[in-house]
Amino acid sequence: MKSITKSIAILIILSISLVGISQNTKISAEPKRAKGQTDVVGMSCTPIKNVRIGIIGLGNRGIDAVYRLPFIEGTEIKALCDIREKCVKESQKVLTKAGKPAADEYYGTADAWKKVCERDDIDLIYVCTQWDLHTPIAVYAMEHGKHVALEVPAALTMDECWQLVNTSEKTRKHCVMLENCCYDFFEMATLNMAQQGVFGELVHAEGAYIHDLRTLNFSPTYYYDQWRLKQNMKQTGDPYPTHGLGPVCQALNINYGDKMDYLVALGSKQFGMTEYAKAKFGENSKEAQQTYTLGDMNTTLIRTHNGKSILIQHDVTNPRPYDRHHILSGTKGYVQKYPQEGIALEPNAHNWLNSVQFDSMMKKYEHPIVKEVGELAKKVGGHGGMDFIMDYRLIYCLQNGLPVDMDVYDAATWSCLVPLSEYSVKNGSTSVKVPDFTRGAWNKRTGFKHAVK
Amino acid sequence: MKSITKSIAILIILSISLVGISQNTKISAEPKRAKGQTDVVGMSCTPIKNVRIGIIGLGNRGIDAVYRLPFIEGTEIKALCDIREKCVKESQKVLTKAGKPAADEYYGTADAWKKVCERDDIDLIYVCTQWDLHTPIAVYAMEHGKHVALEVPAALTMDECWQLVNTSEKTRKHCVMLENCCYDFFEMATLNMAQQGVFGELVHAEGAYIHDLRTLNFSPTYYYDQWRLKQNMKQTGDPYPTHGLGPVCQALNINYGDKMDYLVALGSKQFGMTEYAKAKFGENSKEAQQTYTLGDMNTTLIRTHNGKSILIQHDVTNPRPYDRHHILSGTKGYVQKYPQEGIALEPNAHNWLNSVQFDSMMKKYEHPIVKEVGELAKKVGGHGGMDFIMDYRLIYCLQNGLPVDMDVYDAATWSCLVPLSEYSVKNGSTSVKVPDFTRGAWNKRTGFKHAVK
Repeated sequence: MKSITKSIAILIILSISLVGISQNTKISAEPKRAKGQTDVVGMSCTPIKNVRIGIIGLGNRGIDAVYRLPFIEGTEIKALCDIREKCVKESQKVLTKAGKPAADEYYGTADAWKKVCERDDIDLIYVCTQWDLHTPIAVYAMEHGKHVALEVPAALTMDECWQLVNTSEKTRKHCVMLENCCYDFFEMATLNMAQQGVFGELVHAEGAYIHDLRTLNFSPTYYYDQWRLKQNMKQTGDPYPTHGLGPVCQALNINYGDKMDYLVALGSKQFGMTEYAKAKFGENSKEAQQTYTLGDMNTTLIRTHNGKSILIQHDVTNPRPYDRHHILSGTKGYVQKYPQEGIALEPNAHNWLNSVQFDSMMKKYEHPIVKEVGELAKKVGGHGGMDFIMDYRLIYCLQNGLPVDMDVYDAATWSCLVPLSEYSVKNGSTSVKVPDFTRGAWNKRTGFKHAVK
Repeated sequence: MKSITKSIAILIILSISLVGISQNTKISAEPKRAKGQTDVVGMSCTPIKNVRIGIIGLGNRGIDAVYRLPFIEGTEIKALCDIREKCVKESQKVLTKAGKPAADEYYGTADAWKKVCERDDIDLIYVCTQWDLHTPIAVYAMEHGKHVALEVPAALTMDECWQLVNTSEKTRKHCVMLENCCYDFFEMATLNMAQQGVFGELVHAEGAYIHDLRTLNFSPTYYYDQWRLKQNMKQTGDPYPTHGLGPVCQALNINYGDKMDYLVALGSKQFGMTEYAKAKFGENSKEAQQTYTLGDMNTTLIRTHNGKSILIQHDVTNPRPYDRHHILSGTKGYVQKYPQEGIALEPNAHNWLNSVQFDSMMKKYEHPIVKEVGELAKKVGGHGGMDFIMDYRLIYCLQNGLPVDMDVYDAATWSCLVPLSEYSVKNGSTSVKVPDFTRGAWNKRTGFKHAVK
């Protein structure tokens, strides 16, 4: 009996020590790369002089892309696709107005997008659908030999993140998440400052998506079939982290010499959706009675391998001014974008730079890409021009066979906050390991750079 | 053998399920109240017409208190104590200048403060020493029949938090943490707004202590024996959370109908102290070579029982402008204090109130206590007047036998972030239960109120 007692004791100790690890193993797993498959870090593809594009999803974001892309030389929109015929026709008008040839039209069925991916005269699939179609379309497109550009977030589950990575590695096609905030003039200037050491060693960064979307979420028409409202009814954590996260990850060189180690997320309960629905639709309305799983405010904290901390917030429900934070804090200086842009630098960092000093900094550190294309971007528009710069860079890299600014590892790393923050929130804000989507190649490159020919 | 296998399986399952709880049991334990001991929620003590005070710790904070207290009628400073004779003498001069009788002097030994506590002609011990003496002095003072007021934080360990609670409950003496930021004019106005429902249901709140203290920390004289620098060499987590936390806890009614459930903390590595020391003292200096355990930036997230979230930050190392955040976000409106005061309200909360609207709100919701004593407070000074209002309220409550604004449960709850955030950081940002220091009495009162006669 003694040996049995001993075995039991050992088993207990074993099981205890395993729990700490196993708790997160499943969601944080790093599945082994298939034999023969290699990473796509810094991958260059054959230059494409004339980029032929199929656009899938022609709602609010998609039709804007139809408007913007013709401004870039060497692009051709070959196909327009949406489940709604009306959206396709409206986009077609935009093309015509731009003096461009009509694109082929795809609509009416939920999988009309497959036919676009299956064509052999398209180089790039540009996806602006609701979130849950991003990965399925991307995977299908890459498997059919297309590069793919995806609205944010690129993926909703860990499995989808890995699908993107594995498909890009297998097919050697680019998978670019369209994180437009990385191309905001201010974010680009501060990235330039960070890269030139203005803030010293970066220690802490913050991003956010704080944007009161209640009116839009409850609108019967703004989001197709109220898909975003429905996400609020099945998700929690931070479902939309990348607008704040992308720019600070570039500044912190995540996947370029640093990587995320672990994160924790904590959310408030849901208060605002129900309160708003009661006031707008009545106490007993369906809108007031149904359950919204998404907490009003979510905060996610990330620790990086090199010891930096990142804070990301999401609140689309409580009434407050729009805010993406965009904070970079280093050993020599500090910048924040909201509620107003401000920079503070050694040796006088207790005080903000005055407006003359600030303007002079912004001029001095204007990003070379903004210098090159900023004026045109402002004319074309799209969130003040950043959407155009994003498209411009995407097409530029494809045309010149250069590594893309945001690769599939960035798409997966930035998007994995969606499932990992949800997991953390659902498990009492447990700490969750962030997998290394590069599978060991995160420090192959030192320092993020925009490729130029 | 089958039944043995079964027992083993059951034991494994049991041990696994225990781990999740036991992980935090020790630090989050709520030791049972001793028999006969009852809570001090809303405790009133015998009114003290003339409050006789002994001040212990006459550094930067202490000498200011010596200056302020004589402005309040019905106070008498009976004893001045510091290990440094010089500080006692300087404080004595301040008293003389105020036209007050000389106080008895205590200095020269590390435990000179005990004699002050042992006197029988003192009602209140006012403690402004370095952090690690707060609880020892408070406990000794209460045990010797004195009310006690303590600089922040009141305690550094969970054991100290419980010592304060148990001693106050046992001795029926007030233990007040001197959280001056609760009396800032802006914080008080926003508390008034919150209490009157201006922001709707509060959902999320933020506070911070972001204050570049490098010069002071490395000064050979500013902090006695460089005690604060030494704390940077043995602590991590958030060692100084209460300036941001106190005001938002009052607005959220923590211990007045809500309570903290759990927290997580995540910190960056230390970068700034070493970099600063290298530049100032040389690469090979003692200052550059020694280890600083305190990460530059710490963020702690707290979830409350009623589903609210609180974010608290601490950074005393990286160069950036002073910032306490002070954010209250609710279902109807939003306020933040830094980098500039701003309010946004339904139905137009996408925009900040303009300066006329803002000023009108601040006037309308000026806190009654500020109306009463704000002008005098500004004249006396002390962080713009808040220090004086804090003293004024403390003495007012003692003189009128009223419950104090910040009781021992607040002192323990707010201070427990020190050990709990450190525990979380040291354990990979694990989630930690926050004990209920009221032991079940957290919802005895609904809504925080300043007592008035």
